[in-house]
Order: sequence, then structure tokens, then C-alpha cells
Amino acid sequence: MAKLVECIPNFSVSRERDEPVFRALVDTANSVPGCTLFDVQTDGSHNRCVFTMIGSPEAIEEVAFRLTRQAAETIDMTKHEGQHPRMGATDVIPFVPQKDVTLEECVEMSRRVARRIWEELQIPSFLYEESATRPERRNLAACRKGQFEGMPAKLLEPDWAPDFGERRIHPTAGIVAIGARMPLIAFNINLSTSDLEIAKAIAKAIRGSSGGFKYCKAIGIMLEDRQVAQVSMNMVNYEDTPLYFAYEMIKTLAERYGTSVVGSEIVGLTPAAALIDCADFYLRLENFDKKTQVTEYGLLNTSWE
Amino acid sequence: MAKLVECIPNFSVSRERDEPVFRALVDTANSVPGCTLFDVQTDGSHNRCVFTMIGSPEAIEEVAFRLTRQAAETIDMTKHEGQHPRMGATDVIPFVPQKDVTLEECVEMSRRVARRIWEELQIPSFLYEESATRPERRNLAACRKGQFEGMPAKLLEPDWAPDFGERRIHPTAGIVAIGARMPLIAFNINLSTSDLEIAKAIAKAIRGSSGGFKYCKAIGIMLEDRQVAQVSMNMVNYEDTPLYFAYEMIKTLAERYGTSVVGSEIVGLTPAAALIDCADFYLRLENFDKKTQVTEYGLLNTSWE
Repeated sequence: MAKLVECIPNFSVSRERDEPVFRALVDTANSVPGCTLFDVQTDGSHNRCVFTMIGSPEAIEEVAFRLTRQAAETIDMTKHEGQHPRMGATDVIPFVPQKDVTLEECVEMSRRVARRIWEELQIPSFLYEESATRPERRNLAACRKGQFEGMPAKLLEPDWAPDFGERRIHPTAGIVAIGARMPLIAFNINLSTSDLEIAKAIAKAIRGSSGGFKYCKAIGIMLEDRQVAQVSMNMVNYEDTPLYFAYEMIKTLAERYGTSVVGSEIVGLTPAAALIDCADFYLRLENFDKKTQVTEYGLLNTSWE
Repeated sequence: MAKLVECIPNFSVSRERDEPVFRALVDTANSVPGCTLFDVQTDGSHNRCVFTMIGSPEAIEEVAFRLTRQAAETIDMTKHEGQHPRMGATDVIPFVPQKDVTLEECVEMSRRVARRIWEELQIPSFLYEESATRPERRNLAACRKGQFEGMPAKLLEPDWAPDFGERRIHPTAGIVAIGARMPLIAFNINLSTSDLEIAKAIAKAIRGSSGGFKYCKAIGIMLEDRQVAQVSMNMVNYEDTPLYFAYEMIKTLAERYGTSVVGSEIVGLTPAAALIDCADFYLRLENFDKKTQVTEYGLLNTSWE
């Protein structure tokens, strides 16, 4: 095994609302040798699905293009309804370095795929996150603001020409955000309170946008069934803002509000390193080199005949 | 990739004292396709070296035999000197399950290799750890007691017939211990004291043999250069006696003696799972399934063309 890239495209369709279209996308995801579909999440109320694929850079580029073409042929955004914000049949395509690949290489991949999607499918795109061509496009939410319905007008604004393609959406497939980013970890911490305001106050305190940890995005939400207030986070760079930063700071802030942490959860995938770094911190390891001392890294770097 | 087994044979030679013999063993370790030499440790004062290899069960069985033959042809135990207890040119051969292999399969491997080593090389063996045929042979130290020089007499004792081979050592290669075991983690905890007696008292309290954790072996030692007392442990089953059990209990015991934990270290390799389980504990993760949520496990279970 050599270079590995992860791709997590989001499509504006769900198994719950249109099983044949969903199935065809799954088949397309499995159509490229050298690429593996790890995980599929589908949500009927969002009317959206998310695929997690890992493979060689070449295979990932090819499958990202084929999936965008497949989605464009089968999803009509003029008829799409769902709770989640969206602007295209293929809504967003992130590329994430997994092994022996740099973030810069993933940026190059995103640009090649964006160019091909415009040239062969006439679907325009915004480059976001590390691929962004200007600061305000790094944020996906800023790119998507206005959603599918507002995009024809938005693309005519001086600052919102697509990075690839002309100033008009594809009539049924809309526009897509494409970019490279570090692995993101969905990390949530549950409090021993049903007071949503406390979770919101803690989320505001720890997120980078309001003065907290640079690579932590956070909101306060309510787990209605358990009557538990939760700080729901995206850790967008676990190397520079480790999970234990968030855990320890939330523990301290919870105490300040007279409550405490009852548990946490990781939604979806995490790199082993994010958790190994926590063990390193809590066990006070000295001179531990995970790349040479953790067996699995050796296994991943070794090829057997 | 399918089944993977780790093998960590110990030989009674060191690069420091006999480089040509040492080099020939390294070459032999690299002579079997499907098997990778991960790590080599050599110690001149012990006059001993330890190889860490991982590969398919078939490749590992073959390389274990070839190494034993190579060591028998080049190491003369009648002339061996070193600080570490030893009884054979190849002193001990542990087989450790790494991936999609059971401990029972490793026991079967150990028995096949022991049989072949007797039949083709006339070197007898004791089966130890999980492969042991009677309880007192599980412990390697018990098997090795008397060392090379004492083995001819020991093998004539009623209870100490070899598991494979006759009641006589190989004249120059001695006898070898062969067995299957779980991955072992060398985990040491440093105290903020230079009082060796405290480290010894804590080691005694936490080791399984004297009432502590079942799968923890521990001694107290002194790091002379740092003037730091250390609890030095072998964690022989990190699933049932996790690293954080040892860490937390030693933290508590250190406090009881008026001192504290300043750091810890892992010597050599550790499975990622041993550290991920610590993160799970300290972050209070709810419903975390490392086998499906840690990316690297997915990578290891996926084969790319």
C-alpha cells in the first residue's frame, strides 16, 4: 500500500426518500478498483447521504467524478426538500490525507476534480477549506449560504464567481463545494444537566470563532430523549487542538456552572492518533513515538507478498 | 492481508560481541517472503538480541525454524557469557496473534515448530505460557531456572522432561522455550522520589503474584542517572488489565507514600488498542467501537489492488 486519500462526498438524496437513486450511487462508489466504500450515512429528514471512501489518489479522483456525474443524472435539485442546507445534487466533496499524502496534494486533487466536473458536466464549483482561493471561501457555510434556490443570484455578485465554471448553476445539479482538509472528528461531550443554556455558554467559550481553541467548532444542543445538554463539536485539526484540550476545558467550565461531564462520544471515524495522543497525555508518557512504537502503523507501512 | 502473527525470538548473541553471527541471523530473518523484520534490539552486557517479526502464520513458522537452525550452527552455548539468564542459542520463541488469528492457532504453531526443531535439529524444547502442558511451565523463568549449565541435570528430574525431544540438551545449542502469548506491553512509571523502597513496595502491591492486578508483572528499580525510582511492569494482557488500571493505582499508592507520578514510558511496541482503551477511559467515551470507528483498523482490514 502506498498513498491513501479519504473522500467524504455528500449527496442531496436519502435511502429513505429515493432508494433507487441512493442505490445507484452506492453502486457507483463501488465501481472503481483501488477504492473502498467504508461507510454510508443516510438521513431521511435531511434527505441527504454521506459516503466515506478511502483509496489511492487516482482511484479517489475517478470515483469522485463518477459519483458527481451519477448524482447529476438522477437528482433534480429543483424538486429537492430537506432540513439540511444544500446547494447541489453533489453538495460537497472533501478530500482528506490518510497516508503518505500531503494536504497540498489533496488541494491539487480537488482542483483537478473541480476542473473536470466543469468541463465534462458543466457543474460549477467553489473551492473551500485548504483549497479556498480567498479567505471567506474557506468556510463551507459561507459558500453554501443562499442554498440552491439563491445560487443563480449569488453567482452574479462581484465576490461570488465560481472557482471553476461560469456564473450560472447547472439547472438541476446546482453547484458543488470541493476542497481539501485535515481529518475532522465529530466529538460531543454530555453534561449532567438538562439546561441547554449551559451547553451553549460552554460551546461559545471553547470554540475558536469566539476566543476558544482555534481548531474547535462547537454548538450547544439538547439530547431530548435523555434530557441531557451536550456540547457538540467538530475538531478540525486534532494535532494542534487535541481532543483532551476540549475535554479538560469543558470539564473545568462545567464545574464553574455547577455541573459536570457525564460522558463523551465520537461520531463516525477517528484517526487512531487522535486517541493515542490522549493516552499519551493522561498517562504522562515520556518520549513516546507513536509512528515507530504502535504496531498498527508498522503494519500499515509494510506490504506483504 | 489476511492472518498475521508476531514472533519475537531471543538469541544468545549480540552485535557488540559477535557481529558476523548477529548479521547472519538478521539475514536469515529477512530470508522468508511474507515476513517482515520490524525491530532488532541487541545488548552487549546481556550478550543477547531480540528480533520482532510479523508475517503470515506460514512465513513466521518457517522463519522461526530457519533462525533456530542458523543460531544452532553459529552459537556455542558452552562458551556463552552474559548477564541475562539463558538456556539455549535460541533461548525463547514467543508467537503472538496480531490479526485474524486466535491464541489457540498460535499454540498450534508453537507445537509444530517445536516438533520440527526436535526432529530436524535435535534441539529439545519446553512449551510455555499458553502452550504450556502443565501449570508450572507457563512461567518462562521457571522453565529457564538452572540455565544452560544446569539443564542436563534438570532434564533428568521427574517433572522436567522436555515437551518435545529426549531428556538431553543439544550439546552446543541447549534447549529452547516455545510458546504462544498475548501481546505484552513493557510499561514503566516514574516516581518523583529517589527512594527505591517505595517503588518496590508499590510494585509488590500492584503485581498479580502478590494480590494486585492479575495480568501485571512489576518490580521496583532505580534509574541511576536520573535518580528516579521506577515501577517497571510487563502488562501481559492489556484487555483484562488495562494500562490505566496500573497508572491510576500507582498514582494512588504514590500519594499514600507521600510522592507522585512524574511520567511513564512504553518500551518497544504496543498495540494501538491498549492506548485507545486509555483514551476511552479518560474521555469517558460512550458506545465507542474502536474496531469500526478507528480509521486504521478499517485500513488494515481492507486490501487494495
